[in-house]
Parts: sequence; C-alpha cells; structure tokens
Amino acid sequence: MSGPGRRPQTTIFTTMSALAQRHGAVNLGQGFPDESGPAHVIEAAAAAMREGHNQYPPLAGVPELRQAIAAHQERWYGLTPDPADGVTVTAGATEALTAAMLALVDPGDEVIALEPSYDSYKAAITMAGGTLVPVRLEAPEYRLDSARLAAAVTERTKLLLINSPHNPTGTVLHRDELAAVAALAVERDLLVVTDEVYEHLVFDGREHVPLASLPGMWDRTVTIGSAGKTFSVTGWKIGWATGPAELVARVQDVKQWLSFASGTPFQYGIAAALGSDDGFYRGYAAGYQERRDLMVHGLEEIGFDVYEPEGTYFVTASVAPFGYGDGLRFCLELPERCGVVAIPTQVFYLDQSPRPVVRFAFCKRPEVIAEGLRRLGAGL
Amino acid sequence: MSGPGRRPQTTIFTTMSALAQRHGAVNLGQGFPDESGPAHVIEAAAAAMREGHNQYPPLAGVPELRQAIAAHQERWYGLTPDPADGVTVTAGATEALTAAMLALVDPGDEVIALEPSYDSYKAAITMAGGTLVPVRLEAPEYRLDSARLAAAVTERTKLLLINSPHNPTGTVLHRDELAAVAALAVERDLLVVTDEVYEHLVFDGREHVPLASLPGMWDRTVTIGSAGKTFSVTGWKIGWATGPAELVARVQDVKQWLSFASGTPFQYGIAAALGSDDGFYRGYAAGYQERRDLMVHGLEEIGFDVYEPEGTYFVTASVAPFGYGDGLRFCLELPERCGVVAIPTQVFYLDQSPRPVVRFAFCKRPEVIAEGLRRLGAGL
Ligand SMILES: CSCCC(=O)C(=O)O
Ligand SMILES: CSCCC(=O)C(=O)O
Repeated sequence: MSGPGRRPQTTIFTTMSALAQRHGAVNLGQGFPDESGPAHVIEAAAAAMREGHNQYPPLAGVPELRQAIAAHQERWYGLTPDPADGVTVTAGATEALTAAMLALVDPGDEVIALEPSYDSYKAAITMAGGTLVPVRLEAPEYRLDSARLAAAVTERTKLLLINSPHNPTGTVLHRDELAAVAALAVERDLLVVTDEVYEHLVFDGREHVPLASLPGMWDRTVTIGSAGKTFSVTGWKIGWATGPAELVARVQDVKQWLSFASGTPFQYGIAAALGSDDGFYRGYAAGYQERRDLMVHGLEEIGFDVYEPEGTYFVTASVAPFGYGDGLRFCLELPERCGVVAIPTQVFYLDQSPRPVVRFAFCKRPEVIAEGLRRLGAGL
Repeated sequence: MSGPGRRPQTTIFTTMSALAQRHGAVNLGQGFPDESGPAHVIEAAAAAMREGHNQYPPLAGVPELRQAIAAHQERWYGLTPDPADGVTVTAGATEALTAAMLALVDPGDEVIALEPSYDSYKAAITMAGGTLVPVRLEAPEYRLDSARLAAAVTERTKLLLINSPHNPTGTVLHRDELAAVAALAVERDLLVVTDEVYEHLVFDGREHVPLASLPGMWDRTVTIGSAGKTFSVTGWKIGWATGPAELVARVQDVKQWLSFASGTPFQYGIAAALGSDDGFYRGYAAGYQERRDLMVHGLEEIGFDVYEPEGTYFVTASVAPFGYGDGLRFCLELPERCGVVAIPTQVFYLDQSPRPVVRFAFCKRPEVIAEGLRRLGAGL
C-alpha cells in the first residue's frame, strides 16, 4: 500500500487456505471451526432479521449487545465497562485492533508486542506510522521473560500490545507474567491493548486473567474481544473493544471511518449467545481440550516435537525431526506431500527467517483431526 | 485520532440519529430505510446460516457473490470485472472507500472530490495523509462545472473521487459532465474512485452511467458499490470495489487489515438479491420516485426552496425562507421545535461555514414522510 505505511502482503491465512482448496487438503491452517455455532445463536440472528433489524446499528453497537458484553465481563472477571461509553462493537477483532493502533499510535511511536506475533499486528502498527518492537517468547516453552520485556521499553514506547491466550503459540500468560506486564505499564506509564479473543479457550483448569483486571490497569487498557471464536461464527465478524470511556471513544472515532458499524442481526444473535449458561462455556473448553489432546498425542506419535498449548485452538510443533529447518518450506510442500495444510510459525516473526516450527489448528471435528493425522503419518 | 491524520470527529449521522432518539423525532437524517429488504433476500441469508455458512469467507468474498456482482455490472452496464480478481467484497461502501484511499493515496497527494462531499471522504483521505481538494457543485442546481474541475488539478493531484448519484445533493452527473471527468482523468493520467452506491436510484427516466464505462476509464477506475441501499439492508454492510485486477488487489491488500472479510451469510443473501428481475429494480426506483415527489411537493407547500433530486433518496432544501442563515442551527433546533431530524448540508463542506441548506431523507414509509411533513408544517 501507499499511504504512511508500506504495501502490506497478503495474509498467510489467505495463501494457505487457497492452497488447501487447490489440493483438497485437510485445512489445519486458518483458525476457523468446521461446525457452526449453537443453533439458538443462529436462530436469534435469523429472528432479528425477520423482525426487521437490518439497518445500521448505532455506531457503538446495539444496546442489547453492549449490555451483554459488559455483563459478560462482570460475570467472568468482575470488570464493569460502561455499556453506554465503555464498549464499542467492531467488525471482528481485526478491525478493533487496527482502529486501536490508528487511534493510539502516532508516527514514530514504538509498540511492543509478543513475538511470534499475529500478522495483523505489524500491518496495523505500520499503517499508523509506528514500529513494532518484538519481545520473544522463546521456544520451546514460549514463556514471557519480564526482564526482556522491560529492556524493550524506550523513550518512544507508546503502548504494549499483548495477547493471551497467545496466537500462534498457545501460551497462556500466568499471573506472575501478567503482573510483570502490568507493573511495567504502570511504571513507564504505557497504554495497553490486550487481545483476548481466546479468553474461553484455556485448558487443564487454568484461568484466563484479563490484563485490565490487574491493579493500575483499567484506565490505561483497551481490551479486544470477539464472538467468532467462542461461538464458532468467525464469519460474522462481531468483535469489540472495551475499557475506559476516553480510550474507547478514540478507538470508535477511527472505527467509524473503517466499517462505520456492521452486522446488525448478528449483534442480536451474539447478545443472546453471551448469556449462555456456564455449562456452555465449560463444555466448549472441555471439548477443545479433548481435541487438543487428540492432536498433541497424534503429532507426537508421528514424531513431531510438540509444545502442548495451555490455550487457543492451535498446536505448535517442531518439524526438525523430519529434517526440515524451514517451516515455510515444510508447509508449502505439505499439501502435495500429505494433503494437509499448516501455518509456518516463522511468518509471525519480524525477521521471517527459517524456523523449523509450524502451527496446526485443532478447531475441526475430531474425525477431521484424525484424518489429518492419518495423512501426516502416512506421508511423512 | 493520532496516526498520520488528525483526530476525526463523530459523524453527523451519529449525532443527529441520537438527537432523533432523544426527542422521539421523525428521523429524516441518516440515510437508512425504515423497512427491511425483500423477504427472499432475508430468507436467503437465514438459509445460508442454517446451512452452515458462518465462518470466514475468502478475503475477496464468497465466489457466488463475486460472480453476482460481476454479472450485475455486465447486465446493467456491459462492464466485465473478473470475478476472480476484479471484485473484492467489503464491510460496506465506507470500508471500500477508506481502503481505497489508504491503498492509492500517498502522504502529500491531493484528491479532488465534489463538494458538498460525503463526510467519510475527508476522513479517509486524511487518514492516508492526503488532502481533499473540493470542487463545488454550486447551489441551487448543483451541476459540475468542468472548467472548475480541470482548474483544480495540480502536480500533486493523484486521484479524482467522484460520486454520482451524488450524496448529499441528489445530483446525477449527466453524460457530458461524466465525459469531462473522464477526459480530464485521461489527459492528466489520474486514478479515479467512483462511489456509485445509489446506482439504482435515478428518477424521471434518467440513466445511471458508471464512470468506468467511459473510454479510457476502465484501467484507472475503482468502482464502489453497495447492497445496503438497493436492497434496504444498510445494517448488513455488504459493499464492494470492482475494477482492473491491479487496482482491486491494492484495495484488498489494505482491506484485509481492516475487517479482513465479513458477513458470510449476508454475502449469500446479496448474491441472491443481485439476481432480482428487472421488475424489482424498476419498482424500487419507481417507489422512491413517488416518495421523492411526496417529499418535494410537501416541502414546497410548507415554504422551503427545494432542489428536486435526480437521484439518491435525499432532498436538498433551503431554510432561508424561514429566516435561517445557518442550516446547522436549524437542524439543532428542529427536533425540539418540530419533532423532525434533518442533516445540515454545511457539514459536508470543508469550511463548515453556515449555509441555509439542509438535507431530508425520504427513504421512509410514505406515512412517515407525511407525518414528518405535517410536523414541519405545524412547527415552522
Ligand atoms: C482472519 S484470518 C486468521 C484466523 C486466525 O485467527 C488464525 O488462524 O490465527
Ligand atoms: C454510515 S451512516 C450514513 C448513511 C448515509 O449514507 C447518509 O445518510 O448519507
């Protein structure tokens, strides 16, 4: 692109999903489920359409959804964003993230993000004229080293961009790691944008702790959430930004020139969905934990070195045991060799240099995961 | 906002729709219909949801919709965008416009737009680091003066941003005006972005002529369309950009970092809608022509000086007969004084100086228009 940033590249997800289609491959690349969300959510959206909720929603989103988002944060985390001016609904988390960067980052600013970093982060920061400063989560454990984080802060650091549960690694930041982030933000007076779209996908009894809930954090933090992952409707693109009124207003002021506002009937559907009972949320996490186990054990049996994720629906695995030093080469060969698509983790690093690590998505029906594993086992 | 541009203001539509709600006013401000689109369109989207079309669409949009958009342009205008790489689906026309500006405008570039100009134009151009150079459509006829347009071109002009049918005035550019735009674009080798979301709303037997259909224009033109206006589903936010592959790719490369892609089930609904028979499109224009006549005559009877629009669902009227020199003051007083909301046209001028002109939307049921007129007649 022209404009303040450089021309962005096509997302790896688009490239790999196209490869999957071409080869009839089992797509364990792009993170979308192969089953639609709960029927009552779909019926709520259909009913909203029939009732005539098909025109522009208010810029901030329909009141029912804003209230549901606020109630959801109170119920799960004791956070109390104001539905009137502390919540703005976006065209998915991607729009929320880009609007936040355009709103909060000035040309020349530095934004610290965990690396590997989800690919839209760099694009959004670049569009705003800022620079992404990566702080590595080191393989194979992908933990956050708080000294390294602190050392990355300079005079030009404006903002910490954190994601936990972390895409692509599956790391869930533990309380001490989050506390270090919060302490640093307070000490250096930094803004924080936290992408928590996998908030309900944490395993083994772990707990998702929103950064905004830590001492000193509320007033400086924009939290990004999304319904697509939790309710298996990634194509509806209903996301949100929550936080103090002043920061949310800035994000919304930019968002109004991106999509303006979108998905009116879906907003009603998601308002209904967020009120789902505890059983739904527990069943959702438990179901994915089983699939994680299926995927992790299957990959290990085939010979991958696997990092077992604590959250998200992604598994990170080393392809070095198969003689590959370059995960991108592995992923480009895989569709033909095995009829499977995966994502090379190296594309989430600034340097893009070869790394023998790839990401498999397990947001697929168990039989699809099993078929993917069978193909990998047969072909490798 | 920070970033390359300045902090944008809240859209006038948000401000005025909020005023309408507070006062229980008849909202003749923001351009959304008060009836939902055809039942078969809504049922097509509902069916898509039930059939499981709820995950991310391809970045460019689902193939069915891209084909329908291309077929629609061929059927109506003889244009032949390639569904494979000449069409990208966006989160409404607003996203298409902003993505186009971010993609095609470099910092320091000038973009010529018709003034009064739809408010997101300036915001989008500013975000890209460019400058909007206005060319006036002069009241009361709001025609395009081609000499004035040519005189606005400088060394720094990158792009002409044209909209016809024109929001807010309702002007439809005639063939000679369009030919002058095209000749200038060719002569000065300019890119063109043309916002034609009201393509099916032209009255009195006039014809919508896409700029891209003129000689020399196809290769330099991005055409922006939208389903929201034509099918009365403004809240679905399904828009598109079409044109030569090279330009569409640039728009799409930016769009992928805004919403990425959105509204999967709606995309199927709109694919069905675009195939509607000629009777639907004719009935749509004829129905709105009746409402235009109702509105124009009603306003004239009350004492407004009215510019009868050739297209769109907006009427421009002077409030000077009521002693107002400032349309903004008129519009701010109107909800309380009459229980009606209108949009002050002056907000669509760069200088924002007081002008005695306002815009009324007639995309409302005839009885709502009649009630609005009754209230205006009683209160003024
Ligand atoms: C918007 S496409 C990316 C989907 C996703 O979140 C992922 O696969 O990481
Ligand atoms: C996106 S809100 C603006 C609606 C509209 O097109 C108008 O009223 O001009």
